Amino acid sequence: MKQDQIKRRTLLRAAAVTALGSLVPGLSARQMPEAAPEDPTKVPGTPVGRLGTRSPFEQPQKKASDISARSPLQDFYGIITPSDLHFERSHNGVPRIDPQKYELLIHGMVERPMVFTLKDLKRFPALSRIAFIECSGNFRSGKTTMTPQEICGLTSQSEWTGVMLSTLFREVGVSPKATWFLAEGSDAAVMTRSIPVRKGWEDAMIAYAQNGEAIRPEQGYPARLFLPGWEGNTNVKWIRRIELSDQPFMTREETSKYTETIKDGKIRQFSFDMDARSIITYPSYPQTVEKGWIEIRGLAWSGRGKITSVEVSTDAGKHWHVATLQEPVLDKAHTAFRYGWYWDGQNTEIMSRAVDDTGYTQPTLQQLVNARGTDMGGYHLNPVTAWIIQRDGTVLFKPEKFR
Amino acid sequence: MKQDQIKRRTLLRAAAVTALGSLVPGLSARQMPEAAPEDPTKVPGTPVGRLGTRSPFEQPQKKASDISARSPLQDFYGIITPSDLHFERSHNGVPRIDPQKYELLIHGMVERPMVFTLKDLKRFPALSRIAFIECSGNFRSGKTTMTPQEICGLTSQSEWTGVMLSTLFREVGVSPKATWFLAEGSDAAVMTRSIPVRKGWEDAMIAYAQNGEAIRPEQGYPARLFLPGWEGNTNVKWIRRIELSDQPFMTREETSKYTETIKDGKIRQFSFDMDARSIITYPSYPQTVEKGWIEIRGLAWSGRGKITSVEVSTDAGKHWHVATLQEPVLDKAHTAFRYGWYWDGQNTEIMSRAVDDTGYTQPTLQQLVNARGTDMGGYHLNPVTAWIIQRDGTVLFKPEKFR
Repeated sequence: MKQDQIKRRTLLRAAAVTALGSLVPGLSARQMPEAAPEDPTKVPGTPVGRLGTRSPFEQPQKKASDISARSPLQDFYGIITPSDLHFERSHNGVPRIDPQKYELLIHGMVERPMVFTLKDLKRFPALSRIAFIECSGNFRSGKTTMTPQEICGLTSQSEWTGVMLSTLFREVGVSPKATWFLAEGSDAAVMTRSIPVRKGWEDAMIAYAQNGEAIRPEQGYPARLFLPGWEGNTNVKWIRRIELSDQPFMTREETSKYTETIKDGKIRQFSFDMDARSIITYPSYPQTVEKGWIEIRGLAWSGRGKITSVEVSTDAGKHWHVATLQEPVLDKAHTAFRYGWYWDGQNTEIMSRAVDDTGYTQPTLQQLVNARGTDMGGYHLNPVTAWIIQRDGTVLFKPEKFR
Repeated sequence: MKQDQIKRRTLLRAAAVTALGSLVPGLSARQMPEAAPEDPTKVPGTPVGRLGTRSPFEQPQKKASDISARSPLQDFYGIITPSDLHFERSHNGVPRIDPQKYELLIHGMVERPMVFTLKDLKRFPALSRIAFIECSGNFRSGKTTMTPQEICGLTSQSEWTGVMLSTLFREVGVSPKATWFLAEGSDAAVMTRSIPVRKGWEDAMIAYAQNGEAIRPEQGYPARLFLPGWEGNTNVKWIRRIELSDQPFMTREETSKYTETIKDGKIRQFSFDMDARSIITYPSYPQTVEKGWIEIRGLAWSGRGKITSVEVSTDAGKHWHVATLQEPVLDKAHTAFRYGWYWDGQNTEIMSRAVDDTGYTQPTLQQLVNARGTDMGGYHLNPVTAWIIQRDGTVLFKPEKFR
């Protein structure tokens, strides 16, 4: 092998045959939070155990405020969100619930009001589905030093398992006159939302499992309402009661909150569907890049169906290129996308936009303002997100003013 | 509502309207490992946090021996195995590796031997894939009181992300004359296996992520070889070296071990593919069932392709019924199946058999014995697994003698 053949990429360091001996042993000691042996082959490893753990060198975390905690989207690979990193939003903390005492009441406009224990729920036919849940207030902006987690970390994806609500509806005999149902949680906020009955017949689920195991406490243990594609707060956690009615219940969470101001002083209520969206997670702030080939990576999703394409621009929106979507592309699910880009080392802006199978294209912030006015609230904002790539390889968020 | 209408299922307890007030408060106190409040709506919950945790009422665990730890298949829902419950098999423990110091050497019959850091690997085009890994020695039998975890818990499934080995093969310029490569781990066993080069071109991956985050230490942190559908030990963890050659290396792990005795004293070597298999995980020992409708649930998988059908027998193999497969049905992946069965309360045996898209049908133990003889070793045993359902609702494993 000749040294001068080793030139294909600056990122690859060739190993001369004479250097082979030094590859594993002899690495210089470094200051690390936890030391690893110089040569791991010379030290017996840790025995197998009953529960695995993360490497001490990996410490992904949610970013928590008083009421919510955001998923570190920039740390993710693929489409599954690790359960302990699933975003969290609660209205009065996470209740502790004994699964042996858990009960779900379904009553109101039904033939047979019933109470279901957790064991009851698990005896019905089960269904699993990989899909996202996203908070309706999932957009922050304002400064250039914001990460994907800070901008829109209130979305996460799991494989959810449970019983279809339609199965329970048939069991209790929901009246054909029922048009709405109340979903009530057993948290200290007694979170309540009114949901159209059609969603219950369509694809709503009472979920008791997440990513292969019992649902996590922050996600509604032992059972939650799961409404694929609908804003997070309607997916009522720790659900204890469903009441069928012929009108919405006008709870606090749908009158004082979770409504949006639109143009001409009007207010939009019961805006359930989460519109198509995408974000580039690599490169993003505070990562840095080097001149040459870069695989731009990100996530796209739509509450209305499947992602049909993601387009990427590397010249501030002048030209758009079709990204590759990672299979499986699932309905109402985070979908990973990639686009290979040769960065010439100049200042530029990169961004992505998602298209779903309803034909909807993710709007720019300006398009949102044009449609809904400058007074639009903080909900259902899904603008194209741009990253500024600077000559020195640093990456900054491009915050846009809109109010 | 009339009380006499409440009769559809014994498992469902109806709530008379007059009883509504007592549904949530007033539950009787019970001895539990950790107490939950009588009425969770009256107690502010736990604040949101940086990392979620399991409910204290849920404590799934692997079952560990000195060298391996088995996944609790009976506790799983859907197709994703929680990362900390992924089965484990190591040959001298789990090494601690500093990701900053990690290097993978590819050399031998290549144009340009190269060393790749973890950062290098992540810069290449990435791919994600949901697929299982199964230990070749994944069958135990012998007594009726065995769980799915004990019988075949050495299989688990993750969404794996990494760089295709074919990409690295092109990078280093693998010689067209190379037919095998050595995969070497940096654990204290320096685990080594010879792998046909065609697998490297086909679908082998250097995986650095699992279920959305960095790969777990027990699974090869920071990077492992992932050979979809091939026996677990060939998916060399903590991989540090790949050497291309025109012959197998005849390492200890493919001469003294991981070979199978077959008929007439012959021995099978390099039997990589894991054949189609299934197991009913509900009902299984030590669960109990009640007379009436039962949703039989289980997992099926094949290292040779997709599962095309799973058949279930509820009368000891006399008749077989087609089970429902849960979408997505993925290539070389655990696939969840379900079959609704009305149990009449009599003694019987239930079992499942998987069929994959090569046309292969999971054999009985007797068929395996007929094909390979009574001296066949402990590897690549994928027999139909039967559960005995007793009149009292208890469920027992049906162990069959074969040597």
